[in-house]
Amino acid sequence: MHSFTDLVASFESRFTASLPFPQTPETIYDPCRYLLQLGGKRIRPVLCLMANELFEDISEDAWSAAFGIELLHNFTLIHDDIMDKAPLRRGKPTIHHKYGLTAGILCGDVMCIYAYEELAKIKKSLPQVLQLFNRTAIEICEGQQLDMDFEHRNDVSIGDYIHMITLKTSVLLACSLKMGAIAGGGLGDSANKLYAFGKNMGLAFQLQDDYLDAFGDTVKLGKQNGGDIKANKKTYLLIKALENADVTQKKEIEKLLKEDTESKVPGMLELYSKTKADIQCREAVAQYSKMAFDCLEDVAIPAKRKHPLLELANYLLMREF
Amino acid sequence: MHSFTDLVASFESRFTASLPFPQTPETIYDPCRYLLQLGGKRIRPVLCLMANELFEDISEDAWSAAFGIELLHNFTLIHDDIMDKAPLRRGKPTIHHKYGLTAGILCGDVMCIYAYEELAKIKKSLPQVLQLFNRTAIEICEGQQLDMDFEHRNDVSIGDYIHMITLKTSVLLACSLKMGAIAGGGLGDSANKLYAFGKNMGLAFQLQDDYLDAFGDTVKLGKQNGGDIKANKKTYLLIKALENADVTQKKEIEKLLKEDTESKVPGMLELYSKTKADIQCREAVAQYSKMAFDCLEDVAIPAKRKHPLLELANYLLMREF
Repeated sequence: MHSFTDLVASFESRFTASLPFPQTPETIYDPCRYLLQLGGKRIRPVLCLMANELFEDISEDAWSAAFGIELLHNFTLIHDDIMDKAPLRRGKPTIHHKYGLTAGILCGDVMCIYAYEELAKIKKSLPQVLQLFNRTAIEICEGQQLDMDFEHRNDVSIGDYIHMITLKTSVLLACSLKMGAIAGGGLGDSANKLYAFGKNMGLAFQLQDDYLDAFGDTVKLGKQNGGDIKANKKTYLLIKALENADVTQKKEIEKLLKEDTESKVPGMLELYSKTKADIQCREAVAQYSKMAFDCLEDVAIPAKRKHPLLELANYLLMREF
Repeated sequence: MHSFTDLVASFESRFTASLPFPQTPETIYDPCRYLLQLGGKRIRPVLCLMANELFEDISEDAWSAAFGIELLHNFTLIHDDIMDKAPLRRGKPTIHHKYGLTAGILCGDVMCIYAYEELAKIKKSLPQVLQLFNRTAIEICEGQQLDMDFEHRNDVSIGDYIHMITLKTSVLLACSLKMGAIAGGGLGDSANKLYAFGKNMGLAFQLQDDYLDAFGDTVKLGKQNGGDIKANKKTYLLIKALENADVTQKKEIEKLLKEDTESKVPGMLELYSKTKADIQCREAVAQYSKMAFDCLEDVAIPAKRKHPLLELANYLLMREF
């Protein structure tokens, strides 16, 4: 079994050494190479490789699936960054910011299709892998659309929010694991348990991210906290605070949402605490984490083989608050 | 054998009756339905069905391929329209114009993935079909990128231009035919001849389009001519005129390119004629048309079975000048 660190390193060297793009037209492929060589955590392809290694020595099919997943993920990031008007990704200018809107759109498009070119190399269970991948990619688009829609809505419930982050974030982690399992001949039940493990882990991770953005240690995070608050982003914390607030608190929250002052972040944090949204967010993280670990435990494979997956889940979920 | 008109009607009713999108999120799927229900000529899916019918009764696999092709084509139109800042498509507002940039990007993305969902239903020769489709989709992106690049370049040769329109326009016609043939068990040579037929037909069609935009009968075209000239678009005519022009003519062309006057279109048309770019464009149309019909003739299938394909090619290429 390979450790998390080993697999990240193997993926990194194999992936960047064999990027599928030709030299020309360089106006489309240079930006693609630029983004992919900035790195990234490579969590998703590594989950695929780990899930595969539960069942067999990592196969060529699993590598093709892992490449396809990483390309799909980056395609969605390129287009999301356009829609979010994000200037930076991985600490460097985003593609549309550096090369313009046309490059942003076309590089995303071509990267999506290269993802399918990697998948098309899969020999075993191609139709099943393709169906899962398609379903997941559709869900990611739907999740992004819902996220955009939420900006203009004032009636987003916790249920709506969980549904949105499930689609936007969790299903790709889940799909990565299941694709690795299918490529390794993993039986239906194991593959489905791994899928549920990834889905719950993704939810726990996203909710933790919401919490850390508000209450995280600025030094450890490497960025100022309160970014979501400043942007009026509808996070678990804000939705829950509005849900729990009494009439006075609700008015205070709504007043702060209209403000752009120094006191906005500390004011909102105080309201998150007063309404107990902070505690409930931490409880939700713990609850989804527990469900994730329970699902992993249920996979009918000797416990020691699951060690790398546990290690990765701990890395993602046990970050200090 | 079904006629062109029959197949367009069958495709239209089957496709619009079974669009693959769910009801929600309506913010992503309403614009998709809007565009697809505006119609379009449906040339590409019909080519796929016709090529399939050369070899067998039209199969479910061929229908899946035809659906996938039409979805891919519309995905590229949605994103091209954003890049071209086009307000209208099929006489109605484009998606990004009617619903905004986010909808334009995401509807394109999700439509591309639904194209793959249709393909994934194919039972026979899925890996071959998928590889051809991927290769073609990549080429279309490259063609669009080159087209965008050409706007800022002053050294585009006829060879560059033919390469660009091959990628942007012709390969999808070629791919549509070859996919229909592969789905029908068409042998390699027949499938490749059909591919070449489509490629040459696409080139002839695009060059004819360039010619008609400049010299076409305004009444028959249903639009003012000279649109490409007004937009300084690098067409076969402009590139060829610059190539053929003597020093004085070249200066006149360059002067007109900087103008935005009433006399720009008639002035440029006169120069296209003086430099014989007009005649050479018509000759190129005739030459690619001949190559197309020769390729179709070479397909080892009784001539009468090819009648619908001939009918469609004639419809596309024999438009009055």
